Amino acid sequence: MSESTLTFPEADARKLEPHLPPRRSSPAPTPSSSSTRGDAPPDSLPFVTLTYATSLDSALALAPGTRTTLSGPQSKAMTHYLRSRHAAICVGVGTALADDPGLNCRIAPSGSANERPQQPRPIIIDPRQRWAFTSQSKVMQLARAGRGLAPYILIAAAGPEPPAERRRLLEELGGKYISLGGSPSSSVMEWRDILRAVKAEGLDSIMVEGGGQVISSLLGAANADLINSVIITIAPTWLGGGSVFVAPARRLEGDGNPVAAGRLVDTAWIPLGEDVVLCGRISKATC
Amino acid sequence: MSESTLTFPEADARKLEPHLPPRRSSPAPTPSSSSTRGDAPPDSLPFVTLTYATSLDSALALAPGTRTTLSGPQSKAMTHYLRSRHAAICVGVGTALADDPGLNCRIAPSGSANERPQQPRPIIIDPRQRWAFTSQSKVMQLARAGRGLAPYILIAAAGPEPPAERRRLLEELGGKYISLGGSPSSSVMEWRDILRAVKAEGLDSIMVEGGGQVISSLLGAANADLINSVIITIAPTWLGGGSVFVAPARRLEGDGNPVAAGRLVDTAWIPLGEDVVLCGRISKATC
Repeated sequence: MSESTLTFPEADARKLEPHLPPRRSSPAPTPSSSSTRGDAPPDSLPFVTLTYATSLDSALALAPGTRTTLSGPQSKAMTHYLRSRHAAICVGVGTALADDPGLNCRIAPSGSANERPQQPRPIIIDPRQRWAFTSQSKVMQLARAGRGLAPYILIAAAGPEPPAERRRLLEELGGKYISLGGSPSSSVMEWRDILRAVKAEGLDSIMVEGGGQVISSLLGAANADLINSVIITIAPTWLGGGSVFVAPARRLEGDGNPVAAGRLVDTAWIPLGEDVVLCGRISKATC
Repeated sequence: MSESTLTFPEADARKLEPHLPPRRSSPAPTPSSSSTRGDAPPDSLPFVTLTYATSLDSALALAPGTRTTLSGPQSKAMTHYLRSRHAAICVGVGTALADDPGLNCRIAPSGSANERPQQPRPIIIDPRQRWAFTSQSKVMQLARAGRGLAPYILIAAAGPEPPAERRRLLEELGGKYISLGGSPSSSVMEWRDILRAVKAEGLDSIMVEGGGQVISSLLGAANADLINSVIITIAPTWLGGGSVFVAPARRLEGDGNPVAAGRLVDTAWIPLGEDVVLCGRISKATC
């Protein structure tokens, strides 16, 4: 728990700015603050940033459950900077199980090491309650230490009640379970339901970080129009066959021929150390 | 056959220069010219540039046999510029069958539209003689028109003699069959054999262009040390599941755990239109 504060150069932050949600006015946004956002979608969903780090062969990790360091230290600092610019950050239960992630922000918004980072709310998509967290889970330890927020865990409403002990632990630290529609036997939740629930908590922006399944499903044709911004770090490496790949489902035209699953427009390629950061918006033509 | 000459900006060409073989002194290099190259590998193999255009999900094409336009017009001009800077260009038989490619160069070395392009020698890897080309195949038409060179086709020595008619057509245009070791029942040739054969023809540099199988095999651990330079164009698009992917075979450490299959060093990320061009060398640590 002795991880140091990171810094992200102001010059790089400026290049990312056009691809980020409006700046947060306060560390703990309330539902009313959402009414002031000029570019909120009509059905009042949060600003959604999809972000991930990938190899040249579109892999996130060498194997399921393996934490793989793909990108360089600058990219890590960028991830924490992006977290400081979002009200919530989201991962699937697979990532929570595989990585025991901290899901906090270790960077000061201004880039000054003395300023206290603005913490995002971790959102865990866990319809079937597979994540048996304890007080020793990293995100809970960080919440207890005041260096992060306890997660909101999205579970299927039709499933069993979470164990009372676990709920108590979660709520003591400021987290909670949020029940959503959907079958408890399915590992899938509707993205629109997820994002509405996030917005209902007063969270105006969310950064979706992983893992492979979560990213591929959000990139799919049914959901891609929910994404406001995409920020991908590409490392100049190949992980090789058998890795955890990102690929949205294929799209077919009326005649049954495949077409590209998605395309980014208004793109910017920003070299960052040995890596490159690609920013863009999903083309409406492919939603 | 009315395709126009392309131009590639001098400024972009300068950025690529550190990643290219020494400039060709004459349009038709001879074996003796190879002795003057300072950085020729000790076993006298040609300078090998691996190049391909890929989507964000590491796909080359939507489906096998489908020609997919991934990258923008600037990238196409770059490909032709790169061809002008290599003595040979190489594709697998799958690409020859799927694309009926021209495999010529439509760019003048200086970027001037009036200067005659320096043509590379097409090399087709076709151990089992699957490519039933005719006088109407695009590469043959271009050779007849003096706008490209006829191919050298690498076939397995243990296989049958090529049909006399086809050999005549090929040789009339200045191409030929070259027999290599290896089983005619196998679709695989040894890269070292291929490259030695290329060098024996006085061809000092070769650009390996595709397709997926050829690229993945050259990137594999057994062959990656044969590559002098890698130039990858990445388009900001996802093709989706079921596409033709590039991924080298996975590598395992002594303990059986997977490690990254390869990594580039001395990298440069060069934005080109909507795409980015990544140049680098394969890290010795991963060969």
